[in-house]
Amino acid sequence: MSEVNQGKATRRAVILLSGGLDSATVLAMAQAQGFECHCLSFDYGQRHLTEIEFAAKLAQRSQAVHRVIKVDLGGVGGSALTDTDIEVPTSTAVVEATDIPVTYVPARNTVFLSYALAYAEVQSALDIFIGVNAVDYSGYPDCRPEFILAFEVMANLATRIGVEGAKLTVHTPLIDLSKQQIITAGMALGVDYSQTVSCYQLDTQGSACGVCDSCHLRRAGFEQAGVSDPTRYQQA
Amino acid sequence: MSEVNQGKATRRAVILLSGGLDSATVLAMAQAQGFECHCLSFDYGQRHLTEIEFAAKLAQRSQAVHRVIKVDLGGVGGSALTDTDIEVPTSTAVVEATDIPVTYVPARNTVFLSYALAYAEVQSALDIFIGVNAVDYSGYPDCRPEFILAFEVMANLATRIGVEGAKLTVHTPLIDLSKQQIITAGMALGVDYSQTVSCYQLDTQGSACGVCDSCHLRRAGFEQAGVSDPTRYQQA
Repeated sequence: MSEVNQGKATRRAVILLSGGLDSATVLAMAQAQGFECHCLSFDYGQRHLTEIEFAAKLAQRSQAVHRVIKVDLGGVGGSALTDTDIEVPTSTAVVEATDIPVTYVPARNTVFLSYALAYAEVQSALDIFIGVNAVDYSGYPDCRPEFILAFEVMANLATRIGVEGAKLTVHTPLIDLSKQQIITAGMALGVDYSQTVSCYQLDTQGSACGVCDSCHLRRAGFEQAGVSDPTRYQQA
Repeated sequence: MSEVNQGKATRRAVILLSGGLDSATVLAMAQAQGFECHCLSFDYGQRHLTEIEFAAKLAQRSQAVHRVIKVDLGGVGGSALTDTDIEVPTSTAVVEATDIPVTYVPARNTVFLSYALAYAEVQSALDIFIGVNAVDYSGYPDCRPEFILAFEVMANLATRIGVEGAKLTVHTPLIDLSKQQIITAGMALGVDYSQTVSCYQLDTQGSACGVCDSCHLRRAGFEQAGVSDPTRYQQA
């Protein structure tokens, strides 16, 4: 999680791009640092695929490479985001640090980062960017800084990158930021948040539910940042 | 990589089962330790799928659960095992510790173990078995004990397993064994090696080439173990 060497403007980076507010901001940050960005999105059995379409458009507008990887994570079940038997909660209660939400997808970030690692190795990229956030997602084990650090250690042992004496870095520029701070930073970089999606249960027209945890966090973030919320909601 | 608690006979384990000699031995070892075995095989763009059929039959005969997960690893390229542009070597020269063979698939074991972790979490399994071997595969970064240990540390931070105070263990019972020792151990457990496949370039009838590194290692192992080699070769 070290800082980027600003002098090497043509270094490649792999960006995990979901089509949401956070990863759109991360892409803008990586580009502002001069990286040639290769974005990965995952079709992992999430309930809607609209977010992948948003990701593709985001990458295209940013003139970044974009690749969609289909992963068989829905098959293992166990999450409200991939299992239609588990209801997405509408509660907006503060998540306590020891509670793991039902929207947690088992080992999701581990699987995503593993693909990013494989792709980075093939592309000779030494930098991976992921928009994890420990403020709003303290209940997700794989959004914690100690997880990211352990992944980075493992990644350097797993690949020829480490064997050949280079070092792969996993960047988490949002990890300590509030939603308000993320939005403020993204606006300064020109991110168009109307072209991002956060909702856990979009309708078929791509409108957000306005009541899930993710919508609640997003709404509050725009309010606190003093920015008009460009999201299209099903419920005002 | 700690030892199994032999007293808990009904504990579930996730076994990475390729259909090869090594993982067939691992499955027999895990069953001998009393685990209820859930086997995962991966369809990852390898050149032939015969090994998955072998894996399915192995699991069936062992009355183990079997699941095939399709992973988009061939899409990232970079290996002779998934890229038809890269030739599989027939050299049988000893691999030096600093050389990484072209048959190395970038981050393969990291991706496979990540799926095993997701599956273990959903199945409430605390044990993952993988047949990595540091003797014959010293050139593969992700077959080394230090990689496995780092993965285990990361895995316990990545999931609710660790958060809830339990501990996930990645077992590598073959890591220090020669091919001869693996075969001897497997024979003692009743493994039928005629029902396993090791070759990197099987023909369409499922016959082994007899000349790739993997065939060479397998042949030598049977010779050294003093056991008749049950493999069907294209070349005697």
